[in-house]
Amino acid sequence: MSLFDPEEVAVETPAAPSGPLVRVRLLVAYDGRRFKGFAPNRQVRTVAGVLTEALEKWLGHSVVLTCAGRTDSGVHAWGQVVHFDTSATDVDCVALQRSLVKMLAPEVVVREAGVVDASFDARRTAIGRRYRYTVLNRPVPDPFLAGLAWHVEEPLDVRSMQLGCDPLIGEHDFSSFCRRPPVEGASMTRRVRWAEWQELGDGLLRFDIEASAFCHQMVRSLVGTLVAVGRGKKRAGDMAWILRSGDRQLAGQPAPPDGLVLWEVLYP
Amino acid sequence: MSLFDPEEVAVETPAAPSGPLVRVRLLVAYDGRRFKGFAPNRQVRTVAGVLTEALEKWLGHSVVLTCAGRTDSGVHAWGQVVHFDTSATDVDCVALQRSLVKMLAPEVVVREAGVVDASFDARRTAIGRRYRYTVLNRPVPDPFLAGLAWHVEEPLDVRSMQLGCDPLIGEHDFSSFCRRPPVEGASMTRRVRWAEWQELGDGLLRFDIEASAFCHQMVRSLVGTLVAVGRGKKRAGDMAWILRSGDRQLAGQPAPPDGLVLWEVLYP
Repeated sequence: MSLFDPEEVAVETPAAPSGPLVRVRLLVAYDGRRFKGFAPNRQVRTVAGVLTEALEKWLGHSVVLTCAGRTDSGVHAWGQVVHFDTSATDVDCVALQRSLVKMLAPEVVVREAGVVDASFDARRTAIGRRYRYTVLNRPVPDPFLAGLAWHVEEPLDVRSMQLGCDPLIGEHDFSSFCRRPPVEGASMTRRVRWAEWQELGDGLLRFDIEASAFCHQMVRSLVGTLVAVGRGKKRAGDMAWILRSGDRQLAGQPAPPDGLVLWEVLYP
Repeated sequence: MSLFDPEEVAVETPAAPSGPLVRVRLLVAYDGRRFKGFAPNRQVRTVAGVLTEALEKWLGHSVVLTCAGRTDSGVHAWGQVVHFDTSATDVDCVALQRSLVKMLAPEVVVREAGVVDASFDARRTAIGRRYRYTVLNRPVPDPFLAGLAWHVEEPLDVRSMQLGCDPLIGEHDFSSFCRRPPVEGASMTRRVRWAEWQELGDGLLRFDIEASAFCHQMVRSLVGTLVAVGRGKKRAGDMAWILRSGDRQLAGQPAPPDGLVLWEVLYP
């Protein structure tokens, strides 16, 4: 059974864990260029797919992963958090972490593994998420940032882009900046704690944003609209009424997945 | 004719340039992971291959590239310099550079293009080359540095590695640190101007070295031996007698190509 051929995955399903269960938390980094997103999908290669397969091989029973934030195709993670339950007694988390690195690196790197209380839930316990988005703003691209940054040729007015962040701070309905959720009537209200652009030199711009949680494509939609502000196609002052309008047509095109990284998940 | 399928390249060879010739210099960056080295080779995809094909398409005549330093498979460049001659009158180098970026980015990025004097030769006029090598020295790898840095798990003694650089400075026969050249009796004497390790934090180590020129695999062989010093397998003091011995068996295994970048070529 290959780790990399989705066709062959799960021809035989391992048995469910039995007996008393132990909950394990993993801290995971991955290069999103190599995957069709995080969420398990038997038709395509996903991060959850390869991670689940490696865990099932190591533990000898089936594994169900819960993650803090599902990332889309091409989106990266430095600090994705997942949990799963195992019936293995005395799980050696040091050995587990090392084995997972051997099996999955360099595309997926399990940075840490540890036993947690059964009340811990990678998604529900999280009180915040930080995303980072990188823009390369200069005429000539960089071969080493392909797939890792959005290359924008025209000079951007970073001060306006920062001004445009102000109205985002606080609790708002982010319908204007999100893909319509699959569940009708689901709340799009989120609390943004901070959002900041930094100029790192050589045309590198870094956007960091922290919120209680994010709706689908919210960071990419915000970055796309803020870059439209930086290009002069919209004004910084437009951000407030686009937000209030609840109309996705008024926001800019979502930024490409290339520059986006799930940077950190915050727990109490 | 595809840029990327070596099978299809050069089914029809464009005519040679005719009339008075103009010499053009290009400054080129590329991600070596995608290529079987720089040098043209009809059997495999090389940087010179895709660059030549793009130039011939744009100029309408055959092109012969001369580069400052041929890089091996998997080795990167930030500041490779090449030249070629064209019979095109009034070459618009701004348009040429932009077209090449459009045709070849992000894997190959032509950073600059300009007309130079016919006496300029990318290889022969060069008076020095700078290479940079990146090592990631920490237990856990980084998915974003795969193919761009050598991941070394065991802690390295960077001070010893720097001490080991001292005997390299100056003019020496580097036979111990080079692959045997194809031409019997070719000189392996090179002048190393400086060589330095820097700790950038988070386990990132950067090695910069400048020399008049380098023999084949010289930087990778030096880095491999210096990392053996850092691991405690060799002593810093060993570098001097390995150099004097002229015996390649005494040097360490060459470092992998992943971390190596042709950083800059120096001209008078």
